[in-house]
Amino acid sequence: MEISPRPGIAELGELYSSGALSPVDVVQQVLDRIERIDPALNSYVTVTAEQAIAQARRAEAEIRAGRMKGPLHGIPYAAKDLLDTRGIRTTVGSSLMAGNVPGRDAAVIERLGEAGAILIGKTGLHEWAYGITSTNPHFGPVRNPWGTDRIPGGSSGGSAAAQAAGLCVFSLGSDTGGSIRIPAALCGVAGLKPTFGRISRRGAFPLGHTLDTLGHFATSVEDLALVYSAVAGRDPMDPVSSGRPVGTLPTHPDQGLGGSLIGVPSSFYLENLHPDVETATRAALRVFEELGAEVREVRVPDIRTANSLHRLILLAEASSVHRRRLAGQREHFGDDVRALLDQGGLVLAADYLDAQRARRIFCREFDAALRQVDALVAPAVPIPAARIGAIEIDVNGRLENVRLATTRNVRALNLTGLPVVSVPCGFHGDGLPIGLQIVGGKYDEERILSIGRAYERVAGWSRRMPTIARESPTDNPQSARGTHWE
Amino acid sequence: MEISPRPGIAELGELYSSGALSPVDVVQQVLDRIERIDPALNSYVTVTAEQAIAQARRAEAEIRAGRMKGPLHGIPYAAKDLLDTRGIRTTVGSSLMAGNVPGRDAAVIERLGEAGAILIGKTGLHEWAYGITSTNPHFGPVRNPWGTDRIPGGSSGGSAAAQAAGLCVFSLGSDTGGSIRIPAALCGVAGLKPTFGRISRRGAFPLGHTLDTLGHFATSVEDLALVYSAVAGRDPMDPVSSGRPVGTLPTHPDQGLGGSLIGVPSSFYLENLHPDVETATRAALRVFEELGAEVREVRVPDIRTANSLHRLILLAEASSVHRRRLAGQREHFGDDVRALLDQGGLVLAADYLDAQRARRIFCREFDAALRQVDALVAPAVPIPAARIGAIEIDVNGRLENVRLATTRNVRALNLTGLPVVSVPCGFHGDGLPIGLQIVGGKYDEERILSIGRAYERVAGWSRRMPTIARESPTDNPQSARGTHWE
Repeated sequence: MEISPRPGIAELGELYSSGALSPVDVVQQVLDRIERIDPALNSYVTVTAEQAIAQARRAEAEIRAGRMKGPLHGIPYAAKDLLDTRGIRTTVGSSLMAGNVPGRDAAVIERLGEAGAILIGKTGLHEWAYGITSTNPHFGPVRNPWGTDRIPGGSSGGSAAAQAAGLCVFSLGSDTGGSIRIPAALCGVAGLKPTFGRISRRGAFPLGHTLDTLGHFATSVEDLALVYSAVAGRDPMDPVSSGRPVGTLPTHPDQGLGGSLIGVPSSFYLENLHPDVETATRAALRVFEELGAEVREVRVPDIRTANSLHRLILLAEASSVHRRRLAGQREHFGDDVRALLDQGGLVLAADYLDAQRARRIFCREFDAALRQVDALVAPAVPIPAARIGAIEIDVNGRLENVRLATTRNVRALNLTGLPVVSVPCGFHGDGLPIGLQIVGGKYDEERILSIGRAYERVAGWSRRMPTIARESPTDNPQSARGTHWE
Repeated sequence: MEISPRPGIAELGELYSSGALSPVDVVQQVLDRIERIDPALNSYVTVTAEQAIAQARRAEAEIRAGRMKGPLHGIPYAAKDLLDTRGIRTTVGSSLMAGNVPGRDAAVIERLGEAGAILIGKTGLHEWAYGITSTNPHFGPVRNPWGTDRIPGGSSGGSAAAQAAGLCVFSLGSDTGGSIRIPAALCGVAGLKPTFGRISRRGAFPLGHTLDTLGHFATSVEDLALVYSAVAGRDPMDPVSSGRPVGTLPTHPDQGLGGSLIGVPSSFYLENLHPDVETATRAALRVFEELGAEVREVRVPDIRTANSLHRLILLAEASSVHRRRLAGQREHFGDDVRALLDQGGLVLAADYLDAQRARRIFCREFDAALRQVDALVAPAVPIPAARIGAIEIDVNGRLENVRLATTRNVRALNLTGLPVVSVPCGFHGDGLPIGLQIVGGKYDEERILSIGRAYERVAGWSRRMPTIARESPTDNPQSARGTHWE
């Protein structure tokens, strides 16, 4: 049977259990879709077709034998190409790593393997997950499925684009300064950045040691939760991994939000928005009220200053990761990343430590804001997805730098390490998606996933999909070219 | 009744309980001793005579009324003058802070207050706990009770000197690069640097954020344990405080060490020792064997490199603490501290972060070494206490920098955050004390305190005391001059 372009995990699981569908069918159909659609998107750097099919056959046999491992068994997924995959090259978006074939899976890949999920490919990202221009100098730009002249947002753009176009059932990303929430918003999919330390980073290529957080994309918040349950939890091999037990998610979630308190930041986050983003955000707040929640303004600490702290901390930490490589191989770095790393190499330790101290104060204040409510909500990205190559964008008649405008509502939250769910909350007039951040207290993933689920069920934005995802096999006979098929 | 010059905590407690002695007598006798002896030592910066006597009267009344709070009730102690004390100036060894009168007690002072202990004064330290020369430019040098032309070691020198001379029953210090273990060794008293995060640092003036550890001195390891039980444990107000519960210490400790494994580092720690230190260390190892322990060599990671990492990390962290103050008030800093802070201001963030990364590897390797044994033992200081003002010292015919030689066996352990007990283990030919470090695994304070207790009971070195501590009231009629009496 042919599956819908963007099937849910539970839906597939039921079809697997009943024998109506096999993981082999699903993997084959997704591979066909990648071959047909991805040339227009460039979301995959590497497609692991053979391994995926072999694994699907094993899953099929296991499920037929009644040994279904759980909800992710036989589910094909994509992984941002900075996660180590045994025997499969891992480029981190740089040609310097084109020959890098890890000997061991990253911890998340291992856990998904144990859960029976099937890796279908590695997705494109900004150079070293740090590039700020819209095109990767080594692998070319990833394109947004809602408008292929648009950026998908970064740095996990390939994972979000593949997700939106139905080229995987879920996908893994990482978020150091918005790299999950931005592409989730701009590609109209659900994204989760869990609490710092919740998901093991072993085998994930670093960018900012005190900021990097792994997470994932899915079509629905319900699917985010299923993947979260499989990948979160203590890993003694990761020095920043939290030992705090992961809670269980309600299987029959409350449909409403009666008694919940939803906070809206009283400053910064709702300022200087594109009018469509403003409208969508106000409409979302009304949905929360209709669901029974009380929506109230909450004072948050100064985000402008926090964004500057984030910038300085990341400059220094990324420089520490890359400066030896940069010294030897400057010509293999894109101009933007090289400039950032050069700047980072000049940051003084005392400035870095002062920023970390100021960060602790910011975090205390932000935590206090969160304690007044069940979650804070705010637009993830104040503007629509920019055109690929655009440097500036008009926001309410004022030219603003694309990168700064795109990241201004997300970066400071990486200082706090707080968990955030991003859900689609509407569309611009020209059809580009808009995303809403739902921010929770530390280790409060269960709560924000429940809130996100209640919202998406009523709001329904997650059900829309881009035209490209609805194309039938005959619409685009062009075959994959740029992508590396293994 | 007149108490012995260096009474134990339990001994005093029994006399209090039986009514044979009152805290007022003890506090008065200690104040008399300070007035008589401290002019020769300069161990106190501030003596809190009036408050101490008032508190002793309250303790006396409470104990007489049968409301003994615990083993520290009515016990006079001294605190390194970087711990905030409400209403009592806290200088941090700098004239810039001579007018600093905190409005709140540090967490340790609060806990000791709740336990009924009586603060008798604030003790001298190196300038900002960082000075490396033997004399404090603002308050003059603290002198070693075993030879007043000798340094007591720093930076907690005042606390250790007061302890050795019987000018308190126990005393508080801090250890960022050996500042408890060095003075414990050079002054012939017991010292404990607990695991990083074990004792709240709230209200302690910082030096190196990732290194600073509070701890204390006592005449015996038994007393170290009693104080540890009162001050250790979670403090939500200290962001690095560990939530791990503090174990209970055996009240009737095993007399032997049968079945224990005592490790001796196979490199660095036993190299290039003063012959007397070598002899004392070998003798100590024989005592462990006589107690039934197996002594074996254990490979440890490279300590020379670790000492360099410690230096760079501390340079950067101290610069972050002081550079604003330094920029405005350079002339109020001693030459040595100013030079260190100037150097620290030039450390690059990437170098600092690289050092922290290398530190994590060193820690993993050191932890692995510790897992092979119950404790590692090594000499704390490879040389005797240097003369005040000496820059170089002859070690086996080779001139070595006093500061480097004094700190080389202790600094790297601050990178690891591991707990260390320092116990007296003998004397040089000229009567200066020698100290032994007993290093435990993370949060393994109970074990190393038990081992230290077993050792001291047999070895007996803790019972020796300097001549100055044995002086009778008529020996030195000179009254206190430099010290500030409140």
